[in-house]
Amino acid sequence: MMGGDNGLAATAPGVAQAISQHPDLHCLLVGDADRIRTAIKGIEAQERVQIVHASESVDMHESPASALRSKKDSSMRVAINLLAQGQASACVSAGNTGALMATARFVLKTLPGIDRPAIIGALPRPDGHVHVLDLGANVDSPAEILLQFGLMGDSMVRTLEGVQRPTVGLLNVGSEEIKGSETIKQAAELLRTSRLNYIGYVEGDDIFNGSVDIIVSDGFAGNIALKASEGLAQMLIRVMREEFSRGLLSKIAALIAAPVLRSFRDRIDHRRYNGAMLLGLNGAVVKSHGAADELGFHHAIGVARLAAQNDLVSHIRSDLEEFAPVERANA
Amino acid sequence: MMGGDNGLAATAPGVAQAISQHPDLHCLLVGDADRIRTAIKGIEAQERVQIVHASESVDMHESPASALRSKKDSSMRVAINLLAQGQASACVSAGNTGALMATARFVLKTLPGIDRPAIIGALPRPDGHVHVLDLGANVDSPAEILLQFGLMGDSMVRTLEGVQRPTVGLLNVGSEEIKGSETIKQAAELLRTSRLNYIGYVEGDDIFNGSVDIIVSDGFAGNIALKASEGLAQMLIRVMREEFSRGLLSKIAALIAAPVLRSFRDRIDHRRYNGAMLLGLNGAVVKSHGAADELGFHHAIGVARLAAQNDLVSHIRSDLEEFAPVERANA
Repeated sequence: MMGGDNGLAATAPGVAQAISQHPDLHCLLVGDADRIRTAIKGIEAQERVQIVHASESVDMHESPASALRSKKDSSMRVAINLLAQGQASACVSAGNTGALMATARFVLKTLPGIDRPAIIGALPRPDGHVHVLDLGANVDSPAEILLQFGLMGDSMVRTLEGVQRPTVGLLNVGSEEIKGSETIKQAAELLRTSRLNYIGYVEGDDIFNGSVDIIVSDGFAGNIALKASEGLAQMLIRVMREEFSRGLLSKIAALIAAPVLRSFRDRIDHRRYNGAMLLGLNGAVVKSHGAADELGFHHAIGVARLAAQNDLVSHIRSDLEEFAPVERANA
Repeated sequence: MMGGDNGLAATAPGVAQAISQHPDLHCLLVGDADRIRTAIKGIEAQERVQIVHASESVDMHESPASALRSKKDSSMRVAINLLAQGQASACVSAGNTGALMATARFVLKTLPGIDRPAIIGALPRPDGHVHVLDLGANVDSPAEILLQFGLMGDSMVRTLEGVQRPTVGLLNVGSEEIKGSETIKQAAELLRTSRLNYIGYVEGDDIFNGSVDIIVSDGFAGNIALKASEGLAQMLIRVMREEFSRGLLSKIAALIAAPVLRSFRDRIDHRRYNGAMLLGLNGAVVKSHGAADELGFHHAIGVARLAAQNDLVSHIRSDLEEFAPVERANA
C-alpha cells in the first residue's frame, strides 16, 4: 500500500486510522523501507504493521507498459506479487491507475469468463450509494464486456452488501428504446436475457436519484460521469465558501450554519466513497483516489478488508462458473 | 415556441418575462390558438406577441421518424417552417429533442461542411460558464465530426460572446496521450492541426474548473456529463434542504443563512444556463429543457434572441467556407 499524489503523508496516517478502527486488520506496507519507517513512527498496534521493502516506484504519469517492463521492483509490483503469493488478502494502491490495472492483470490474470477487468466505485445517493462500473479501465467496450461488467457488479453487491437481487441499469443517453448506439442496444438485449435483475436504460441523472443499485457503462462514459461529478462538487463547495465569506453578515451566518453545513458535507463527502475495486482479477485490488487524504485512504483500506473478509473473488468466480453456460447460450 | 413537460404553464409566463425584458423582441407563439390565447391573457405589450395556429403537437416520447412523417401540422413543424421561410429569426422549443433535431434537419438542412448538427449548451464554472457540444444529438461520432463540433463551437463563442480565441478542449478519460479510443486520438490530431485554439485533452472535472472555454465531445459522453451534473446538483440541493430542516437550531440557521444560500443557488442555477443551440443548421434553433420553468424558458428565448441579433448562422457559414479548404488539406 503506497503511492498517490500525497504519498506517505496521506497513506501512513490512513493506515493508522484503519489499524485502530479494525482490530482484525494486518497491514503490509510496501515501498522504501526507511521512509515508511519514519512515516509510521507513533502508529499504535505496530505489531499489526509490517514493512516490505521495494526499491522502485511507478511514477503517476508513467505509461502502464513502461511500469510493467522496467519497474520489476516497484512498490506496486511487489504488493501485487504478495497478493498473488497469498501473503496478502487484498492490495490497496493510490498510484497510477493504468499501471496498477496492467500490473494486476499481468500478475494475477483475469477470472475465467472475464475478458477485461473493470473498475467499480460507489457514488452517493440520497439514501445510500450506487455502484458504477466501468470507471475508466476500458474504452470501446463491446456488448459482451458490458454484460460481464453487470455480472461482476451483481456478484460484488450481493457478496459485500447482502442485497439479494440488486437492480442493474445500463447507462444510456435516453430512456426511450430508440436512442443509443448499436453496442448499447446489443448490451441491453444481453442484460435483458441474463440472470440479472436488469431494469433497463438509465441516464446520467439516475446515478444520483436512487433509482438503481448498479450502473453498467463503458469506461469512457463512466469515467466522464465520475469526474464531472467530482468537478461539480468541488466547484459547489468553492462557490459556497466564497458566498459565506462575503462580508460580516455572511461570516456570522457561516458560523451559525456550520454544524448543518458539516453534516451536509459528511453525507456527500467523496472521501467516504473512496476505494474503487478492480473487478475480474484473481485477487482483490483496490484503487484509492490519487488525491485522497488520510480519511480517504482509510476508507479504501476498509473496502479491501471487506472484500478479503467476504472472499469476494471466490464468489465472483463461482457465480461466473455457475451461470456462464446460460449466459453464453443466451448470447 | 411551445412544448415541454410543463407546457404553456411555463412557456407563456416565460414569453411574458422575455417580452418585458427585451423591448426589441417579437414573439410568434405556435400551437393551439385557443389555448395560447387563454394562457397569454394579461401579458403586456401584446402588440409584440402573435399567435400562429398549429393543429397537432409532437408527444414528448414520440419517435423522431413518426413526428416527421405524420405530424405535418405540429407546432414544432410549423415553427421551423416559419424560420425556414424567414418569418421568424430563431425558433425556441421545449419539446421532444429528437423530433426537434430531425424536423430542423429535414426542413432547414445542414450548413455546407457540416455532416451532423450538434447541441451546444453552457454549464456554470466559478468565473462564468463553459460551452459543451455535443450534448446528445449524435452518438458514435467519428473524428471529422468532432472537428466540425469544434469549428462550430468556436464560431458561436466568438460571435455571441466576443471572445477572440476561445480555448477548445477534447473530452477524454485522461490527460495523458496514451489514453482514449482511436477516434479520440484521430480527433485530437485534426483539432491540433486546425485553426482552433486547441489546448488538448480535458477530463470530466475540467468542465467545472474554468480551464477551457469550449469542450468537444461525442454526444454520448457529453449527454452523460450533463445529466450526471444535473442529477448531482439536484441531490445536493435536496440533501441540503433536509439538513437545514432537521431540528429547530438548523431551521434558525437556515433563516440566517438564507440570503447566502440564495446567492449561492443563483450562481449555479441551471435555469440561467437553459437554452441549448442546435448548431450546424440553416437557422437558429434553441432547445429549452423539457422541465424548464418560466425563468428557464425566458433564458432560452434570450439565447435565441442573441443568436438572431448577431446573425450567428451566417457567421458559422462564412467561418466554415473560409476555413474549410485548410481544414480538409490538413485532414
